[in-house]
Amino acid sequence: MIVNSQNVVYSEDQITATYEYRHQNVEKQQDGKIIITPKTTSYTFKTNTKVPKLGILLVGWGGNNGTTFTAGILANKNKLSWQNKRGEQTANYYGSITQSSTIKVGCNGSEEVFLPMKDILPLVNPDDVIIGGWDINEMNLSDAMRRAQVLDYNLIEKVSPYMQDLVPMKSVYYEDFIAANQKDRATNILEGNDKQKHLETIRKDIREFKEKNKCEKVIVLWTANTERFCEIKTGVHDTAENVLKAIENSDPEISASTIYAVASLLEGSSYINGSPQNTLVPGVIQLAKMQDVFIVGDDFKSGQTKMKTSLTDFLVTAGIKPMSIVSYNHLGNNDGKNLASERQFKSKELSKKSCVDDILASNKVLYPKTHKIDHEIVIKYVPYTGDSKKAMDEYISEIFLGGQNTIVMYNVCEDSLLAAPIILDLILLTELFERIDYQVDGMRNFSRFNRVLSTLGYLCKAPLTDQDTPHINSLFRQKTGLDNIFRACAGLQPDDNTLLEFKCPVV
Amino acid sequence: MIVNSQNVVYSEDQITATYEYRHQNVEKQQDGKIIITPKTTSYTFKTNTKVPKLGILLVGWGGNNGTTFTAGILANKNKLSWQNKRGEQTANYYGSITQSSTIKVGCNGSEEVFLPMKDILPLVNPDDVIIGGWDINEMNLSDAMRRAQVLDYNLIEKVSPYMQDLVPMKSVYYEDFIAANQKDRATNILEGNDKQKHLETIRKDIREFKEKNKCEKVIVLWTANTERFCEIKTGVHDTAENVLKAIENSDPEISASTIYAVASLLEGSSYINGSPQNTLVPGVIQLAKMQDVFIVGDDFKSGQTKMKTSLTDFLVTAGIKPMSIVSYNHLGNNDGKNLASERQFKSKELSKKSCVDDILASNKVLYPKTHKIDHEIVIKYVPYTGDSKKAMDEYISEIFLGGQNTIVMYNVCEDSLLAAPIILDLILLTELFERIDYQVDGMRNFSRFNRVLSTLGYLCKAPLTDQDTPHINSLFRQKTGLDNIFRACAGLQPDDNTLLEFKCPVV
Amino acid sequence: MIVNSQNVVYSEDQITATYEYRHQNVEKQQDGKIIITPKTTSYTFKTNTKVPKLGILLVGWGGNNGTTFTAGILANKNKLSWQNKRGEQTANYYGSITQSSTIKVGCNGSEEVFLPMKDILPLVNPDDVIIGGWDINEMNLSDAMRRAQVLDYNLIEKVSPYMQDLVPMKSVYYEDFIAANQKDRATNILEGNDKQKHLETIRKDIREFKEKNKCEKVIVLWTANTERFCEIKTGVHDTAENVLKAIENSDPEISASTIYAVASLLEGSSYINGSPQNTLVPGVIQLAKMQDVFIVGDDFKSGQTKMKTSLTDFLVTAGIKPMSIVSYNHLGNNDGKNLASERQFKSKELSKKSCVDDILASNKVLYPKTHKIDHEIVIKYVPYTGDSKKAMDEYISEIFLGGQNTIVMYNVCEDSLLAAPIILDLILLTELFERIDYQVDGMRNFSRFNRVLSTLGYLCKAPLTDQDTPHINSLFRQKTGLDNIFRACAGLQPDDNTLLEFKCPVV
Amino acid sequence: MIVNSQNVVYSEDQITATYEYRHQNVEKQQDGKIIITPKTTSYTFKTNTKVPKLGILLVGWGGNNGTTFTAGILANKNKLSWQNKRGEQTANYYGSITQSSTIKVGCNGSEEVFLPMKDILPLVNPDDVIIGGWDINEMNLSDAMRRAQVLDYNLIEKVSPYMQDLVPMKSVYYEDFIAANQKDRATNILEGNDKQKHLETIRKDIREFKEKNKCEKVIVLWTANTERFCEIKTGVHDTAENVLKAIENSDPEISASTIYAVASLLEGSSYINGSPQNTLVPGVIQLAKMQDVFIVGDDFKSGQTKMKTSLTDFLVTAGIKPMSIVSYNHLGNNDGKNLASERQFKSKELSKKSCVDDILASNKVLYPKTHKIDHEIVIKYVPYTGDSKKAMDEYISEIFLGGQNTIVMYNVCEDSLLAAPIILDLILLTELFERIDYQVDGMRNFSRFNRVLSTLGYLCKAPLTDQDTPHINSLFRQKTGLDNIFRACAGLQPDDNTLLEFKCPVV
Repeated sequence: MIVNSQNVVYSEDQITATYEYRHQNVEKQQDGKIIITPKTTSYTFKTNTKVPKLGILLVGWGGNNGTTFTAGILANKNKLSWQNKRGEQTANYYGSITQSSTIKVGCNGSEEVFLPMKDILPLVNPDDVIIGGWDINEMNLSDAMRRAQVLDYNLIEKVSPYMQDLVPMKSVYYEDFIAANQKDRATNILEGNDKQKHLETIRKDIREFKEKNKCEKVIVLWTANTERFCEIKTGVHDTAENVLKAIENSDPEISASTIYAVASLLEGSSYINGSPQNTLVPGVIQLAKMQDVFIVGDDFKSGQTKMKTSLTDFLVTAGIKPMSIVSYNHLGNNDGKNLASERQFKSKELSKKSCVDDILASNKVLYPKTHKIDHEIVIKYVPYTGDSKKAMDEYISEIFLGGQNTIVMYNVCEDSLLAAPIILDLILLTELFERIDYQVDGMRNFSRFNRVLSTLGYLCKAPLTDQDTPHINSLFRQKTGLDNIFRACAGLQPDDNTLLEFKCPVV
Repeated sequence: MIVNSQNVVYSEDQITATYEYRHQNVEKQQDGKIIITPKTTSYTFKTNTKVPKLGILLVGWGGNNGTTFTAGILANKNKLSWQNKRGEQTANYYGSITQSSTIKVGCNGSEEVFLPMKDILPLVNPDDVIIGGWDINEMNLSDAMRRAQVLDYNLIEKVSPYMQDLVPMKSVYYEDFIAANQKDRATNILEGNDKQKHLETIRKDIREFKEKNKCEKVIVLWTANTERFCEIKTGVHDTAENVLKAIENSDPEISASTIYAVASLLEGSSYINGSPQNTLVPGVIQLAKMQDVFIVGDDFKSGQTKMKTSLTDFLVTAGIKPMSIVSYNHLGNNDGKNLASERQFKSKELSKKSCVDDILASNKVLYPKTHKIDHEIVIKYVPYTGDSKKAMDEYISEIFLGGQNTIVMYNVCEDSLLAAPIILDLILLTELFERIDYQVDGMRNFSRFNRVLSTLGYLCKAPLTDQDTPHINSLFRQKTGLDNIFRACAGLQPDDNTLLEFKCPVV
Repeated sequence: MIVNSQNVVYSEDQITATYEYRHQNVEKQQDGKIIITPKTTSYTFKTNTKVPKLGILLVGWGGNNGTTFTAGILANKNKLSWQNKRGEQTANYYGSITQSSTIKVGCNGSEEVFLPMKDILPLVNPDDVIIGGWDINEMNLSDAMRRAQVLDYNLIEKVSPYMQDLVPMKSVYYEDFIAANQKDRATNILEGNDKQKHLETIRKDIREFKEKNKCEKVIVLWTANTERFCEIKTGVHDTAENVLKAIENSDPEISASTIYAVASLLEGSSYINGSPQNTLVPGVIQLAKMQDVFIVGDDFKSGQTKMKTSLTDFLVTAGIKPMSIVSYNHLGNNDGKNLASERQFKSKELSKKSCVDDILASNKVLYPKTHKIDHEIVIKYVPYTGDSKKAMDEYISEIFLGGQNTIVMYNVCEDSLLAAPIILDLILLTELFERIDYQVDGMRNFSRFNRVLSTLGYLCKAPLTDQDTPHINSLFRQKTGLDNIFRACAGLQPDDNTLLEFKCPVV
Repeated sequence: MIVNSQNVVYSEDQITATYEYRHQNVEKQQDGKIIITPKTTSYTFKTNTKVPKLGILLVGWGGNNGTTFTAGILANKNKLSWQNKRGEQTANYYGSITQSSTIKVGCNGSEEVFLPMKDILPLVNPDDVIIGGWDINEMNLSDAMRRAQVLDYNLIEKVSPYMQDLVPMKSVYYEDFIAANQKDRATNILEGNDKQKHLETIRKDIREFKEKNKCEKVIVLWTANTERFCEIKTGVHDTAENVLKAIENSDPEISASTIYAVASLLEGSSYINGSPQNTLVPGVIQLAKMQDVFIVGDDFKSGQTKMKTSLTDFLVTAGIKPMSIVSYNHLGNNDGKNLASERQFKSKELSKKSCVDDILASNKVLYPKTHKIDHEIVIKYVPYTGDSKKAMDEYISEIFLGGQNTIVMYNVCEDSLLAAPIILDLILLTELFERIDYQVDGMRNFSRFNRVLSTLGYLCKAPLTDQDTPHINSLFRQKTGLDNIFRACAGLQPDDNTLLEFKCPVV
């Protein structure tokens, strides 16, 4: 793909593109008048096109997500095919936006042209990544994959030889943060209670993995158990310095995930939080900025919440007023087992519950006073369900003249099969943003995007944003935003979907 | 709302705004290389801000949509409130994008600001419209509303006095085009078989209604029974001249809806086709252009299809591959009764079936060869269901590594309560576009938008487009396109959703 | 209906019928052999046909069930009709087995003949009952009915005049037993903490109501809030004497419902427990026996559980093996609000959870070792839902060769509209059983049925049985049992459904 | 199991049991009085306990049902186990009432005792049957099983060796009776148009199969494509003689299934019709009686209809009034493909539609005038769905005071996995009834049950009954009837479910 424009310059290892960002300032005057002032800001984006050798370290590698992700990469890399009830299956990357979604790049006459997202900007090829990780259980990845009961049996047989020698490193394990029912699995843990020592071990693990595998970069992603929220304390979580000190002091409110996040940042590796807990406290955010490294979170948006942030947006945009959203889930995998514990569930509930707030708040015609509606989230652990998570939702909305619209949904969300491609996307996109710098009028130097990489919000249930940044949960807005940043960096213009050339042609 | 910019000029009865339309030409070279050339086209939009006195003429006025629409306008105008099981209800316009949706206009610091769509550009106030129409049944609107069984009983009691004196004019009725089961209702029809005479009567009706009510404008909208498709014939439907001649000859393939459409266009009234039949044949399109009048169609997008063009887009955009979509509907109103007839159902099926084609075709990673998937549409007439239409859908998609995602939906789509606000939107927006002219480099004069007003595709199941115009069914793309045209005409810039000011700030 | 048989004797005020009860004793021998010994026991049933003037006292009269029940009786008695969206409605008793179900009485040639249950044995006519009750809130029944938001608005208007003078008596209110969120409603309560005094007041209320209304009988039914379980203690709940003593001592584990039950029994009135709490402790059961009065419970079986005890039976009987039953509920009425409190929910959960145990245990082919399956119950309080309770269930069963059958259900169970007819049935049937005596060989005198009237199990979520009585939850078995007892008392024979006269005719 | 009673006599190869059948004659007098006369008829049942070597011949052997049935028998016989996603699976007979359901035989103290149905009366052991059949396609059973895509892949691998040598015999194929889309599969058919010759070939096939496999008995079961209804004509289908003559004349309204049925009856083999078409015309019924052979039909009751005859019964029995039942189905197997043709669908629709008639008719309180309600059946062919048939139903019922109960169901009915155990039951039970004779007062000799074996109605969508026999579709009544016949033949008494020994004990 070549963009033929003065705004783009291709060099050996760089694409430099300028982008006119058009936005508006809004002022509400005392007389109720709204004054809107359009502004255009000129950005330059420089994308390094040299794709590095990438190492991936997963916390909770032996869990369902970790094993499915690993098996999927290996199945694709080795071009495996296998049989299930429906016939021959071949490895794919369905569910990954980087690998399987497309972006409109323009029109060829009256035909719209879409290209794969991965052809717009250079991304690491999933075939080339090196995977490793930690787990509180010592099982090798092949056995762990069998235990997970996620994949077709015939695929398990075929991919197993590639996985049996993969063994997780010993994990930090702080009992107080995850459910008591996980204790049986905790057979592969770092000894002692000295959190500083744990931090150093994990840092060493990262360094050694990088060296051993000759990786140019490593990214660390948490796909382990949901922890309870840590109780945020001044003096402990508020600054980078205090976080480091609290680790030194083995403060009880320092969670295992904090150790991983801090280790990762200190080693210059981006850290992605795939669970809902509040690992990314103010002090960790500060540390990320100091280290000039990305942090991304929280919680993979894969099933029910993803649907909800699409469906609610659809309704509100149509002038329809949701009044009650009741969301039931049940699942039988280890994630479900851990969430059966109240404190861990609370982290999850919080992550799932706020996801419609910005959508409702955007429409003051429907919600003139409050956008607090009835919104319930239930998760039950039902072992027989296994990884085949079920979401059952009811949406009731008010429509014209006192009528109601009721939507009931039953959504079979294969938990890990939906999460694994999102893990891939989070990692590949984070890696990409490590290669993009921008400059705007008034800046002396190029800079990375805000280290709190909220641009990946499409992939997160509760997108972490830096302070004073709007929260966007609308799935469509998240995707459009990301697509347009891809376009911008590639020298393309944003798509306004007006198709004016057809509707208002030169006549 | 005031836009504070050089690009906007407000005069007494006009907003003149310039808009830089940014798009791309794509060329595929023989070596597979894709060359993309960005272009910017400068548009000027002039919007007449003087809102006219508007008359609305509905074909099928006495049906469920017609009575619900009329009752809704009157309930709002008279600020009625009433009781149902859930307590006091007040008249609203939920489900109407013009009245109840919002558009982002910019940011006030870190807060996004959204304004009601109707505050962006001046629209006719629904309180001020005059409603009339034709119906094959002679019942007055109050009785017809009771027959429809759409509204709360207490609302019926309250709005009835305003409706009992409203009586439909005699309608054109060509038995061969609608279901035989409608015959009992056909008690209020124009005599004879002379289609030319029918045309003249309808034209006279439009003129007289306009004069009598001192309307500055009239818009005609078909919300009557779905007709069977007419068999498109050269010499009959291909040119405006031939259509007019065929009417003169009372050609059997001239449908009742053609008479209304032609009468409307000849009287200079925009014509909106709310049903799926192919009223808007090439000859009628040509006539619209000759008369410089808008035509809009086909078929209100209110329930299942609206959801489908949102949900399918959501899936495909996520890199998930729908393989089977099965859509069942049942309803018990007169629309359902008419559709119980095979030929009429065929019109509907066609309208509902193609709605995912462009969405699937946009992703060649998922659908490298064909995007023909299993897609079934069923509509059953179940009298007991009344107007409370039920849509039951199953979507099965392929996900990662041979997995499947199954979504099952039960959607209680109150048929007329969802359609009536869409009727309002279609009319108000068509009227607005009659007041907007554009000019672009190379044009000597200002012009209206393409007379085939595909910009309203968001409201149509099978959006009619002029030839060589891409078909867009994706609900989000339709809405974004419309919103951005609103923005453009108001002097605002399109929203690229990147929020770059927060993600890439000046540092 | 006249039964023409030697086994039946009709006298002025009595039907005397004999019934050969055929059953089997089963012995399992040490060698695994099963020895089955058929037995026939000859019963005589005497049914008093003189129907008394019946008073009904409801605890929680002003709640949704109480007001709906009262309005329903009055609407039927006064033959009211009203309008809702679907047209004219007339008062009915749908959902009541006594009023609206039928029982097969035999064949007329090759035609099976079914008669209304209420024509088999003489029941009190619902038109003739007198209704009264207690409530912790002082609202009159008309206002309370409006607050409940259960009935069509036009019916409310019509039935309201009959209800506005009905005002509940002051209620016992022990804060510790119901949810804290009920406190606001507690404006009509008996003063003080002296439980003995409360008991006497309630007894006096019953006596005075009976006298004032010249009732021959009174039945008391609890349809108030679900209480938390009382902690059963030796010395408090174990014997009738201790219960009475504990009341005298105002023991904290004596609940409000215990006061009503004891008052009722001491006044000779049958007591029916429509909620799940354990009011009917051993001491109360003993008291019922001493007083020769019926007790019935627990918890109305109206919606999800009723379905479950039918559906699970259907599956297991078909040789299909349920493995996982997940039952979600949400509702927005005051019952839901009270159940939002954990301790009250626990009572409900227990009541709902054991309902499939006997069904699963009946099939040792499917469940050779354990019949403990995954079975979850969730109830959420969602105010917007109102009385329109929603049940969402998923049943997954194992079928042939490793396959699975998944049934997903969405059940809109209008809570009080389903419960009110069950209240009627419970009362009318309990009253009937007060007029039936039986005698069997070896008995000197006629006796009433066991005072723990488990024969009404069809109407109860967790049927209370006397010790050493099998628990039957299978809906079909419950109904068949009750029908056959009706048949027996009327001199008819049980229906074995073999239709042998047709399948094995004389040839 | 030994029944210790004078009513049962065990001899070497016989159980002789007497059974008091208690029923009632009902007369309606002119004055409206209903006179009911109880009757007791004494039956003697003789069951031959010597189980024969049984041959099974399936028409449509290579289809999904045929291959699944065969694989299932072989998997059980060879005690196969295999892996699927959920772990190790072992062969079972879930879904078969003979193998996996239980019957109550009495009480052991206060414990109810249930025994497997197959232990009540001696049945052929499924391990011992010999299976053969015809198919219009020549594929061997192993390949056909793979084509069917019903079983887990690992099971297919394991059972394949046992099936690859099984090859169907050439089939009768009359193009006019099944869908045109089946033509491609018709590669293994009997030549010519001489129907008499076809009959003789099929008779020879049956004889040779019996001899070759040394079977004592053969039963023939149609599990092939649904045929269109034959047009019943006097002179063709009315008498046995005319049917035989019509075959001789190769009458066009003689279907392929008629050839199989007649061949089977002439060879003394019971014939079971597992599809809905009207094979069992009056002439064939007469022939069955003349040949003293059983016929059973029509159409396996496995999924949606089975549920419906349980659920509707549940509702009506509860005094709730179903008003609208809408039943959608889609499936992608060859059955679905064949049913995509209108004439074949009509057969199916008829079979599925009448199933609630008797249930509604049984309640004249709810349905005083007509029990015709809105009841729609839709079947769509959706290839992607494969054998994993989906049933989606909506039941709307009227409840108390103008309320409605809505039940929506999504039922994943693995088509062949549910049908195969029913095939087994139909065959084993038919075989059993060939060994049971009854005698009743007035009969000189023992006789078989009516040759139209309506006792197996539980297993049939549209149970075939002899004239003047009530139609029973209620699932519970069908099962109870069958269970009680089992009890009767084993010397046990019917279960009246009253449990009187506990409710009315000797006191």
